[in-house]
Amino acid sequence: MDISSFLTSLGTSFLIFLVLMMIFAWLQRKPSNEVVYYPNRILRGLDPWEGRAGRTRNPFAWIREALGTNEEDLVTAAGVDAAVYFVFLSSVLTIMVFSGVLLLPVLLPVARTDHNIILKQKSNTSAFSDLDMLAMGNVQEKSSRLWAFLLGTYWVTLVTYFVLWKAYKHVSDLRASALSGPGVRPEQYTILVRDIPRAPEDQTRKEQVDSYFKALHPDSFYRSMVITDNKEVNKIWKKLETYRKKLDRAEAVYAESKTSSKPEGTKPTMKTGLLGLIGTKVDTIDHCNEEIKDLLLKLETEQKITLREKQQNAALVFFNSRPATASASQTLHAQQIDTWTVMEAPEPRQLVWTNLPIKFHARQIRQYVVYGIVFLTVVFYMVPITAISAFTTLSNLKKLLPFLKKAVDQPEVKSVLEAYLPQIALIVFLALLPKFLMMLSKNEGIPSGSHIVRSASGKFFYFTIFNVFLGVTLSGTLFASLKTVLKHPDQIIPMLGKSLPGNANFFITLVALKFFVGYGLELSRLVPLIIFHIKKKYLCKTEAELKEAWAPGDLSYATRVPNDLLVVTIVLCYSVIAPIIIPFGVAYFGLGWLVLRNQALKVYVPAYESYGRMWPHMQARILAAIIIYQLTMIGYFSVKKFYYVPILIPLPILTLIFAYLCSKRFYLAFKYTPLEVACRNAKETPNMDMVFRAYIPPALVSDKFDDTEDQFEDAQSEASRTVPV
Amino acid sequence: MDISSFLTSLGTSFLIFLVLMMIFAWLQRKPSNEVVYYPNRILRGLDPWEGRAGRTRNPFAWIREALGTNEEDLVTAAGVDAAVYFVFLSSVLTIMVFSGVLLLPVLLPVARTDHNIILKQKSNTSAFSDLDMLAMGNVQEKSSRLWAFLLGTYWVTLVTYFVLWKAYKHVSDLRASALSGPGVRPEQYTILVRDIPRAPEDQTRKEQVDSYFKALHPDSFYRSMVITDNKEVNKIWKKLETYRKKLDRAEAVYAESKTSSKPEGTKPTMKTGLLGLIGTKVDTIDHCNEEIKDLLLKLETEQKITLREKQQNAALVFFNSRPATASASQTLHAQQIDTWTVMEAPEPRQLVWTNLPIKFHARQIRQYVVYGIVFLTVVFYMVPITAISAFTTLSNLKKLLPFLKKAVDQPEVKSVLEAYLPQIALIVFLALLPKFLMMLSKNEGIPSGSHIVRSASGKFFYFTIFNVFLGVTLSGTLFASLKTVLKHPDQIIPMLGKSLPGNANFFITLVALKFFVGYGLELSRLVPLIIFHIKKKYLCKTEAELKEAWAPGDLSYATRVPNDLLVVTIVLCYSVIAPIIIPFGVAYFGLGWLVLRNQALKVYVPAYESYGRMWPHMQARILAAIIIYQLTMIGYFSVKKFYYVPILIPLPILTLIFAYLCSKRFYLAFKYTPLEVACRNAKETPNMDMVFRAYIPPALVSDKFDDTEDQFEDAQSEASRTVPV
Repeated sequence: MDISSFLTSLGTSFLIFLVLMMIFAWLQRKPSNEVVYYPNRILRGLDPWEGRAGRTRNPFAWIREALGTNEEDLVTAAGVDAAVYFVFLSSVLTIMVFSGVLLLPVLLPVARTDHNIILKQKSNTSAFSDLDMLAMGNVQEKSSRLWAFLLGTYWVTLVTYFVLWKAYKHVSDLRASALSGPGVRPEQYTILVRDIPRAPEDQTRKEQVDSYFKALHPDSFYRSMVITDNKEVNKIWKKLETYRKKLDRAEAVYAESKTSSKPEGTKPTMKTGLLGLIGTKVDTIDHCNEEIKDLLLKLETEQKITLREKQQNAALVFFNSRPATASASQTLHAQQIDTWTVMEAPEPRQLVWTNLPIKFHARQIRQYVVYGIVFLTVVFYMVPITAISAFTTLSNLKKLLPFLKKAVDQPEVKSVLEAYLPQIALIVFLALLPKFLMMLSKNEGIPSGSHIVRSASGKFFYFTIFNVFLGVTLSGTLFASLKTVLKHPDQIIPMLGKSLPGNANFFITLVALKFFVGYGLELSRLVPLIIFHIKKKYLCKTEAELKEAWAPGDLSYATRVPNDLLVVTIVLCYSVIAPIIIPFGVAYFGLGWLVLRNQALKVYVPAYESYGRMWPHMQARILAAIIIYQLTMIGYFSVKKFYYVPILIPLPILTLIFAYLCSKRFYLAFKYTPLEVACRNAKETPNMDMVFRAYIPPALVSDKFDDTEDQFEDAQSEASRTVPV
Repeated sequence: MDISSFLTSLGTSFLIFLVLMMIFAWLQRKPSNEVVYYPNRILRGLDPWEGRAGRTRNPFAWIREALGTNEEDLVTAAGVDAAVYFVFLSSVLTIMVFSGVLLLPVLLPVARTDHNIILKQKSNTSAFSDLDMLAMGNVQEKSSRLWAFLLGTYWVTLVTYFVLWKAYKHVSDLRASALSGPGVRPEQYTILVRDIPRAPEDQTRKEQVDSYFKALHPDSFYRSMVITDNKEVNKIWKKLETYRKKLDRAEAVYAESKTSSKPEGTKPTMKTGLLGLIGTKVDTIDHCNEEIKDLLLKLETEQKITLREKQQNAALVFFNSRPATASASQTLHAQQIDTWTVMEAPEPRQLVWTNLPIKFHARQIRQYVVYGIVFLTVVFYMVPITAISAFTTLSNLKKLLPFLKKAVDQPEVKSVLEAYLPQIALIVFLALLPKFLMMLSKNEGIPSGSHIVRSASGKFFYFTIFNVFLGVTLSGTLFASLKTVLKHPDQIIPMLGKSLPGNANFFITLVALKFFVGYGLELSRLVPLIIFHIKKKYLCKTEAELKEAWAPGDLSYATRVPNDLLVVTIVLCYSVIAPIIIPFGVAYFGLGWLVLRNQALKVYVPAYESYGRMWPHMQARILAAIIIYQLTMIGYFSVKKFYYVPILIPLPILTLIFAYLCSKRFYLAFKYTPLEVACRNAKETPNMDMVFRAYIPPALVSDKFDDTEDQFEDAQSEASRTVPV
């Protein structure tokens, strides 16, 4: 690629971004779009326009606002997890800025003034690009200029260590101050107990759990909630909710029809059969009311049955103080360590109820099975795609769908289809991948939503690194390379060193495209906007439906973080080989920080709060990227026949030691709540009933019981009141 | 080796054993030997002869007694650790008996009726032994008889898994019941806190520790004891003790001299200078009294200084209930996890006071340095020995010690010396090795004596396996083989398979020698007996000196366990290749069980109690032996060109899974005290003052303070009362 075509592609991307930003500035001023551009503020009960001079303001005002907010505001608006994500963005940004400040002014001239490429070109007359002249490839073999690049390699590494250490410390403090806040959070008074052994004959589960914890924590035990199998009751509850929505909708439709010329209105009707297509026609409002009445009775019966008979081998146990809870969640309870396993309870909203009764050893086995599947997916992901595209060849299509024959036989259509069929299969697969990985992670038996996201994010990271980064680099499927590597494990470093430098320009363009177009779309929210307006116009009848239509979702770390990490890996790996990539990395993370700051403050609503437990994962993966970078550099210096390559060999070892030190120094405080932190600002005893109720799943909340307070008084239980709602 | 010379060597060993047993039967009846053969019973205040019909009893009565005691008696007499050691012995015994029951009647005939050796011998006329005919070597290549051996390999493995699982469960219960006993043990009310950060300006260490733990454990905190640097005070105290002993001794000598013809006696005298050889002659009793008076004053001053000014960054913290202690010792205290690290306190007698102030990261570094040294020792241990023996050649000796020249020049002496000089160097090295390894382990910064023993035992195990077992097997130094293995890691299995079978007879003889002679010496205690009688006759004057002379020591697991494990490895590895080794293994562990049962009940006195924490180490190493065995079998079946070798490949993987499962299922209960266990039989609040005093090191115990109870009342402290003794 020569410099002009590169600049053209860059310019186009930039133009798209500018257009999208203008669209954003224009659209976000319309009041009807408020719910698309300010849902976070609206849901927090704030005026979206608060503190601003009307709607005719500067279209770049959002930039000032994003820059003006501090971390505290961010935690208030979007939670600790979002703040930690911004620590990640700014850390990476800092690493790149620091690297660039030294590498760009030093390495670019050193590379430009050498002549390796021209010399080589004379002999084999291949095309070369202007950009390549600025890269390490333009330095001659064995040249002493390579010393500058070698020192550059060390510089990037040391900067990364420094920034990551600082950041880990900062995140650790962030987590501690959030955990030691004065507010009462239910999960800080609750532990999750799994693998409860079989109850003795004369005890119910509830009695067993109560007596066990009362004996071990006589002073701090409040009460327990045994996990039940809610499949049936959930089913009924969902049906009930559907009918309630239908009723609301029918009433809205009825009310609408009244306001027009006919004052008596038209009562909406529906068919009772399959999908409302067949069966007898009935009045929707009456029908729904009847169904709801029926279902309420059913629900009540099922609730009783569930609470009495469907108790599982897991429970939530509530304590009346934060330090007691922290201590209990870290203490080994039973001598048989595969029974009565305890952990800090996740928040009520992210508790994966169905995973809780899975047994200790079953969880282990599930985990390894899932790891196996992920490994196979990463390595052999091309196999099913190839199989599908082999099946969906044109001739097969023609056989299956003969009426297409005429169209397909036209040469233009044919060539297009032939070219795109495999790609379509690949795109479909890649679009489904995150969902697939989430499903896999959920099936490991993980009890909390945030942990599932972390786990899926890790899997996705490995997939992108192996397939996108190494896949493009080693050109061809990973599978073939893997065979070589397995046979000659010492070949991996030379392979990286040889293949990577050739693809610098491809990846620079990729990063540029990603930030301009990706963040442009992110900021302008064109897709959610269009979907919202279509829904609003044609589908939504009630307030609830409308609210559902603009629900913004969260930052979706499961895909966002691995994508960012891919860019980190790319930029780090090329930082010394082709330092010109660094400004693009800086732009990606700088722009990302700005745009996402706006989105985090005004748009997205966090789905859970894990108090920054994502950080150790992000940190570990940045270090993984650094190791790939260091191995690549060792390989590339060897290709350049530089005598002093061994000076680089300590680097990967140093990184491993650094990772080990970090985890020794910080990790445990992410796994557990330190007692010190739990004690700070700890209230005497909060309203424990509130804490308890927070964990009652909606399907088990009963309107009837809700007002009769005495149902909750007695923590001692008959079987019928196992979860006394 | 042919069968007759084998039987001769066996017979000789057996004869030695019989003689030693007779000597034991005869010597142990003499009352003057009581303290050598029954020290454990004497120290526990029991009559050594209790319940037995005088001293003219059956010489084999000890066997009946050893068999008659149950585990409870053993725990009372020798502690949980000894009981766990016997679980180890009986588990290994069970594995061998079960293996032998199937393998001996099946494999021996299968091997004996084949003709591989005779066939081979015809062609190359090498010598063969009758024993070899009974081994797998006598089965022809590719023979379907090998199926029997393959199934045998699986049988031994499965038996081992079964027995080890049962044993782990049993030991876990043993530990739990010991930990939940009703007695008050100081270590169950104490946690060890290390890495205390720098104290604020306005607080002493003691105040810092007290306020920290009072805030985090308001209900259960009792008081704290800050660790001090006792080097100076210990020095003075030791000097004091020496003078006290001298005084006692002088008084005894004086009293003795009185009883004889001179009723006024001779006052003993001594010289005050170096080693009592030079200087002015003084009356010993007067001199000692003066010195003691001086030293007592010095000690008091130094004690005050130590308590006030030499406080270190570690402390013992006492709690008033067992569950609170268990919970506190497992809970992460500080947000910075390299500060305020907590763990269960070791017993007072095994607390390694000097290791406590070593900092978190320093401990990590020390550990890795020690691992490095151990690795080098294991792999290159031949280097220093070769160097020493190269230096101590005859010609060097002659140069250094010219007067030896004549003797050395005689041909017989010369040849003997030349042959033995390297061996002598080796023997000296091997004798010093356990001490060296103990020293290394201590330098890791481990805070408890039992942990140091476990750690040294592990190091010794690796040394014996690599050097004795593999060293003999691969004939030649390990170093050469290691070079091959590092270059071609896949060569290790064929190497084992090829080399191991040839050495079966060597190892059978080794095992036989070990059990007959080793256990004979153990039972008869000839060496301690002789030393005791010499000391009694010529050196000991006072009761205390006499008691010191017969102090029996403990079972010394640091060398005993690795030696046993070497036998386990040998027997397991040959169990299928030459099943005839199994009876010898059974004899070794059977006899060992019997002899050591006697010794544990009557002789040895435990030096510490770790509640069976040795078990996970022993279990892990038995599994390591099983893996070596499985790899050997894979190698040997390949050498035999058996087509179905791949059937064996799952075995090592299975073992790793088994090890993982065991550790998941049991290990944590060995690392921590489960809350359930701590709660069982927990007394309300014991005499906490007793608990606290148990941890005061002897050099800091002051007679003066000892009676003024009010010194202990106030846990609040001025600096001068940091450890208020």
